[in-house]
Amino acid sequence: MPDSMKTIRKKTGHFLEDFEPGQTFRHKGGKTVNEGLFSTFTEFAMTTNPFAKNARYARAYGFEGLVCPPGLVMLVAFSQTVEDVSENARANLEYIDMRFGAPVYVGDTIEVETKVIGVRPSSSRPKLGIVHVQSTARKNVGCEDEAVVLTWQRKVQVYKHDATAELHAGEVEPDEIDCELWLPAYDPSADYKALSHLSSSDSYFEDFEPGTRIEHSRGRTMTPEHIHLTAILDNTSQVHCNQYMIDLDPRQYVGGQLIIFGGIPFVLCLGLSCPDVGDNALGDLVYTTGRHTAPLFAGDTVFAATEILGTRDHPTRDDLGIVETRLLGHKFVPEVDEPQDDEAASGWKKVDIFSLDREVVVKRRSHYA
Amino acid sequence: MPDSMKTIRKKTGHFLEDFEPGQTFRHKGGKTVNEGLFSTFTEFAMTTNPFAKNARYARAYGFEGLVCPPGLVMLVAFSQTVEDVSENARANLEYIDMRFGAPVYVGDTIEVETKVIGVRPSSSRPKLGIVHVQSTARKNVGCEDEAVVLTWQRKVQVYKHDATAELHAGEVEPDEIDCELWLPAYDPSADYKALSHLSSSDSYFEDFEPGTRIEHSRGRTMTPEHIHLTAILDNTSQVHCNQYMIDLDPRQYVGGQLIIFGGIPFVLCLGLSCPDVGDNALGDLVYTTGRHTAPLFAGDTVFAATEILGTRDHPTRDDLGIVETRLLGHKFVPEVDEPQDDEAASGWKKVDIFSLDREVVVKRRSHYA
Amino acid sequence: MPDSMKTIRKKTGHFLEDFEPGQTFRHKGGKTVNEGLFSTFTEFAMTTNPFAKNARYARAYGFEGLVCPPGLVMLVAFSQTVEDVSENARANLEYIDMRFGAPVYVGDTIEVETKVIGVRPSSSRPKLGIVHVQSTARKNVGCEDEAVVLTWQRKVQVYKHDATAELHAGEVEPDEIDCELWLPAYDPSADYKALSHLSSSDSYFEDFEPGTRIEHSRGRTMTPEHIHLTAILDNTSQVHCNQYMIDLDPRQYVGGQLIIFGGIPFVLCLGLSCPDVGDNALGDLVYTTGRHTAPLFAGDTVFAATEILGTRDHPTRDDLGIVETRLLGHKFVPEVDEPQDDEAASGWKKVDIFSLDREVVVKRRSHYA
Repeated sequence: MPDSMKTIRKKTGHFLEDFEPGQTFRHKGGKTVNEGLFSTFTEFAMTTNPFAKNARYARAYGFEGLVCPPGLVMLVAFSQTVEDVSENARANLEYIDMRFGAPVYVGDTIEVETKVIGVRPSSSRPKLGIVHVQSTARKNVGCEDEAVVLTWQRKVQVYKHDATAELHAGEVEPDEIDCELWLPAYDPSADYKALSHLSSSDSYFEDFEPGTRIEHSRGRTMTPEHIHLTAILDNTSQVHCNQYMIDLDPRQYVGGQLIIFGGIPFVLCLGLSCPDVGDNALGDLVYTTGRHTAPLFAGDTVFAATEILGTRDHPTRDDLGIVETRLLGHKFVPEVDEPQDDEAASGWKKVDIFSLDREVVVKRRSHYA
Repeated sequence: MPDSMKTIRKKTGHFLEDFEPGQTFRHKGGKTVNEGLFSTFTEFAMTTNPFAKNARYARAYGFEGLVCPPGLVMLVAFSQTVEDVSENARANLEYIDMRFGAPVYVGDTIEVETKVIGVRPSSSRPKLGIVHVQSTARKNVGCEDEAVVLTWQRKVQVYKHDATAELHAGEVEPDEIDCELWLPAYDPSADYKALSHLSSSDSYFEDFEPGTRIEHSRGRTMTPEHIHLTAILDNTSQVHCNQYMIDLDPRQYVGGQLIIFGGIPFVLCLGLSCPDVGDNALGDLVYTTGRHTAPLFAGDTVFAATEILGTRDHPTRDDLGIVETRLLGHKFVPEVDEPQDDEAASGWKKVDIFSLDREVVVKRRSHYA
Repeated sequence: MPDSMKTIRKKTGHFLEDFEPGQTFRHKGGKTVNEGLFSTFTEFAMTTNPFAKNARYARAYGFEGLVCPPGLVMLVAFSQTVEDVSENARANLEYIDMRFGAPVYVGDTIEVETKVIGVRPSSSRPKLGIVHVQSTARKNVGCEDEAVVLTWQRKVQVYKHDATAELHAGEVEPDEIDCELWLPAYDPSADYKALSHLSSSDSYFEDFEPGTRIEHSRGRTMTPEHIHLTAILDNTSQVHCNQYMIDLDPRQYVGGQLIIFGGIPFVLCLGLSCPDVGDNALGDLVYTTGRHTAPLFAGDTVFAATEILGTRDHPTRDDLGIVETRLLGHKFVPEVDEPQDDEAASGWKKVDIFSLDREVVVKRRSHYA
């Protein structure tokens, strides 16, 4: 490097003092969903719903083609907000009122905007505070089929850059976002039964009984593949992909190692639950609240369970019902002290990693099988 | 978890006592081949045949576009049968009479049915038995271009769920499946020679001499990527992806670690042999028999060889010939006792992992180069 | 193996004595860029330019759809030459005068030719010599939109197969290759500003000041994924994917382990620099010279910096300017002796891995934002 060169280090992302209630970010990039992304994520998560696997099945139901599973829509939309909202975050505290709209197909381009609706300091940790945002993802902006595909709020714990900077603390109202789950119409003349062998036979609306907990049978071990999975989503947070940064000061980082992006266990739990809960879903309606309760690392094996909290009729469709669930993720870690959960095998301790309150729109057997 | 919740653990897959000769499974899901899947598997296996790489070449020969290599067709079709047939298997014993039909293109949707044609107990191990099945994969069911793309039999060693359950032992005849390899017509006016630099120059029909063994020059080291590769195929068997299950009781599992899905070395051996055997193949006709002879683990490097067992004219096409081969896969493991193969380098022992009797339809130089 | 079988081991690639000035290779295979390849590589490298991410943005500028980023074009084209030129190389010494032409879209098929323009022995190492080649990649050969997409020279250090063989030493003139960067026209009636939030706001032509060095903020840790990444490019060199070959004689190989294909850090450095240098680039004009200065291994974290060497007007377009840069890649390794770079953190030594002199065609803020 010539001595005369002036070095520039650009700041990436925003810090706590940069956020201001009412402020709006139109996020950079945007992302066209292509078949590589679709294949990588749908399959990684072991999703089984045929709308995401079998184009003839999806078209027979009135979709244009393979449908992005809700977890993939969420990951693509959420990741667009990372640089502006959470590149300098310590943790994502809560997902709130995440509602799905239009279906996303291969070829659709997703763009996202975020409004800051709250900023407040941490009471106990002066270098941290909480930013509350509302984000909305649209597809094909400016085109005929422009539509909202997802809207949600989240709360993030963000670092201050300058410990002495003053905050723009306060709150504003979230915007009213018109976002209703699009559902293909029920066609009484269609032969849905001829396709019914392609989805699981015991996950229709009639099969869900409030007060039951389904332990999903499969587990899936994560590997350092998570670095690539995170990059493919345009998630730029360094705690997921920069081992050198961790090595310089491991105590500064959770677990002293690269932490897996929370979107990965989010979508993996959805996938692991899919044969039992999602195989006959026409769509996910809303995730009212969700949070990560422990970090996930390469080498961990992820398991999931679903609690059926309630069921209700669909307000306008007698071929469908709504299942109210809580999706739970867990892993096992080697036990260092006494056992504390009778589900854990000897020497291993169960650790809850994820919880998501989730309402699913499910086909009725009476109409489809 | 509320105390009042009732826990459900669904049984996944079938056990030995569930199988009955004559029974038919129409497998769930189905799979639309997209460009992500195509790219991942064709390239992972180091396939070189230009029909799978170069769309202008494929179209010039009369294909609609890039053609799924036979190994990928096999993997997609086979994996659809795993949940019903082999999720609770100890081992896949043999591939039998695997015959290819119509070509598979990006956008085609594969669906598979399986008929149970034999069930018998193991003579020595009361908890195990052998299930013999016949599976058939069709593309674009219900559409104009519906066609059989692959049909095969296999024998699987399956666990009993209940040691005292009675078996439905017996045999039935396999179905007659109309499955003939589709080949693009030879067009005497086409300038095939103008494309001949795009495939290897020494793998035409005239180049194969019965009684020779070709040691393919390349090796390929497997990594934990196999977990993702298996998931992308919808193969749900837990021995390939659930490390916690292995850790709970390593002695119960082959090698005490995650075992790589047999389809992976299958397609990798096909790929490694491609420059020498498959570069001028118009298609694979039949795999008469095949088996895995040792497990493969992350960290192993796979090599392949092909024995030329015979050659014969194609019954109806004088531009083509049929090469009868045996494809062999091997790896090397650190030697713990005395050397037993002069091909092995000092300190390493060669271990055969795979064998496949394979008939390939190959272009004649006289017509194409 | 029957005793009577004759074993064949085919030689792969060419050795030093096989090269002859003036000789031309029409490389095998060719490669159709599909969405799987596009997604894997664009995202792996953390590319941010919206032309490669957002199809509506790309079309609004006059491209046909998502545009392959220059690093991906380079990787696809370069890899086609590996078997003939560098499968038996010890090292790639230099990239020279790499010039871009037509844009590459998903669906385009790339085919490559190489002319040998120089062969000379190594003065100090009798088993090695230097081959100087000129390669040209075309898309859609024989079709209406056939076009040169990339042309470049490189110097490679190649092994002799037979130490006593005579070389065809000498030089010939490189061919004149008509290869000019295609740029979408500036449309004064277009509302480019309505899209300007989708790229970074501080990387227009007006923002680049000669004499500055931009330290790009992100790092990216490489994993054994590099084996798959190399295979997906059809790069067949065994030093990237055959661990057994390394294990047999580790001292023979750089670092005694699998070395990451140089194209990987090449494209990763381009990607890491993208938010600061490439986000508002319409295209890369030329890489005048480039070289790898240290090997990269799984586990290393890659960082990049860009020195702004100069800026100049575009000869024919007043909406654009040309930024002359030097792209630099580095990693950190644990320090074993005394520190030698004040940028290195305690205990770590900075190691330069890559350098590329690169001219980029960049939009002017005056016209686009």
